[in-house]
Amino acid sequence: MPDGAALIGIDWGTTSFRAYRIAADGVLETRTAPAGILKVADGDFEAVLEREVGAWLGAAPALPVVVSGMITSRQGWLEVPYCACPAGSVELAHALGALTTRGGRRLHFVPGVSLLGGDGVPDVIRGEETQIIGQLAGGRGAAVLVLPGTHSKWALVAEGRIVWFATFMTGELFAVLREHSILGRLMAGAAPDAAAFARGLAYAREGPGGLLKRLFSVRTLGLFDQLPASALASYLSGLLIGSELVEALACLPQPPDAQEITVIGDSALAERYRGAIEAAGFQARTGDGDAGARGLLLIARAAGLVPGAEPQALRSGP
Amino acid sequence: MPDGAALIGIDWGTTSFRAYRIAADGVLETRTAPAGILKVADGDFEAVLEREVGAWLGAAPALPVVVSGMITSRQGWLEVPYCACPAGSVELAHALGALTTRGGRRLHFVPGVSLLGGDGVPDVIRGEETQIIGQLAGGRGAAVLVLPGTHSKWALVAEGRIVWFATFMTGELFAVLREHSILGRLMAGAAPDAAAFARGLAYAREGPGGLLKRLFSVRTLGLFDQLPASALASYLSGLLIGSELVEALACLPQPPDAQEITVIGDSALAERYRGAIEAAGFQARTGDGDAGARGLLLIARAAGLVPGAEPQALRSGP
Repeated sequence: MPDGAALIGIDWGTTSFRAYRIAADGVLETRTAPAGILKVADGDFEAVLEREVGAWLGAAPALPVVVSGMITSRQGWLEVPYCACPAGSVELAHALGALTTRGGRRLHFVPGVSLLGGDGVPDVIRGEETQIIGQLAGGRGAAVLVLPGTHSKWALVAEGRIVWFATFMTGELFAVLREHSILGRLMAGAAPDAAAFARGLAYAREGPGGLLKRLFSVRTLGLFDQLPASALASYLSGLLIGSELVEALACLPQPPDAQEITVIGDSALAERYRGAIEAAGFQARTGDGDAGARGLLLIARAAGLVPGAEPQALRSGP
Repeated sequence: MPDGAALIGIDWGTTSFRAYRIAADGVLETRTAPAGILKVADGDFEAVLEREVGAWLGAAPALPVVVSGMITSRQGWLEVPYCACPAGSVELAHALGALTTRGGRRLHFVPGVSLLGGDGVPDVIRGEETQIIGQLAGGRGAAVLVLPGTHSKWALVAEGRIVWFATFMTGELFAVLREHSILGRLMAGAAPDAAAFARGLAYAREGPGGLLKRLFSVRTLGLFDQLPASALASYLSGLLIGSELVEALACLPQPPDAQEITVIGDSALAERYRGAIEAAGFQARTGDGDAGARGLLLIARAAGLVPGAEPQALRSGP
């Protein structure tokens, strides 16, 4: 390619589609669409791929294509079995799935990662592993990363590999409680209320009992006019994110290195997580918005699909 | 009344209406209807009262009528301010509200009970206080009681008064997760699965992290074929009820007397709670289905509305 493109990388999740044209030293072009796998009619993923990035594919017929996210799940285009922890770019590269489209293009699919807890209960990620690998960008030290979302993920990485992770249903719980519970019916408006958020955070750390009991405080603080209806959504958000923080810190196999936790993402939600982490006495480091693209490049290199310089040489590395 | 009726008592909740004709020594007649306050059109509660128990009222114009439950809340017929803990039949009787209907009948309304925690966060019950008072039936010892439901209540009673209680949003969380979350979409069927319920109970006690993390096991145990789709609802129920048990035991001001916990109610849900309590190493005592009626009688007596023998003389006392 004249502009040095080395890879087309796609992060294809449940609700969104994000494609990158990637050069050895950074992202050249990004294309996003609300075309998550749940929105693809009749499972015709190839039609969506053509519609969204057909021009890129046509202009560079030899460029490798690597996809990650829920597109590699049972509900996606090609189910790729989970790769067990510890997993870094090399392990993920070895476990890539692949198919050839009707149009004759070879596509490579990144597996999710699984972890079997000591209690026999498995946990899984699919898509986040690529962002985590990209965030590390070949770094060797231990780090704790958080990926806020519907199902929030915490990961511990060491020596460039994911050695532990856990899923917290924080975002989904917030959504179902706001939309379908008595707590939601008490709420008015959605404007952020920083003081109410902080109060929820604090009660998550300090209140008696656990989450089932503390949730009822959303109702009673409203009932006793301690919080206005307009503040209740922020309070619930603080209560849930604060609870996630308490849980995650309690089950992390080792405490965060240098008291620093990296939050991947630049959304308003990620910003709230940073506030929660700092309120708990840790330093919150901001992750890289292009971590997903860099992860795809690192995995493609490890698979030999892209000739590789050292990953650390990437332009947007930390 | 020829048959010795001393009181018409009504437990009027959010979704159901239950009326009793009560004699000094027990319940003579019960009438239930799906006529909770949310189902009363235009707030015309008097029309519902006439429809459901007009015959009782007409046959005994002088009989006192006492009502408890959400009918005494802001959304009900007459809002009665909360009575603060500790609260027994005497305190509740002193705080009764009253109104006279268009038809000229005097009705007495039992207040709910509030408790301000040391952390400044209030908790409330409305309706359950009457069941608890009835369950005590004048007993003097300390006891721990559980009232399973949408918002499950635990109470500590001593010297015939409610001295502490807490609300857990267990039932509502189960409902919104089953009906509106990804966990519910994985479930098939609703037949109880005792082994899956027990597994959920155990994981609530033993699994790492807290509820936000453990909830995700509903998904992964299904995904990894460790539990069939038909078992997931029971597993979630066990996980939530088990979590409630852990939380409640942790925040009870004193441990259950003689390791015994009383579950009020005779529903299938109450049966599951008894199983959970026994699995945690406590004795589960079955509460009285008529506790609500007896509570209404005790409060009416304490208010002087009904001439009173000792409450212990009640036929269906424990």
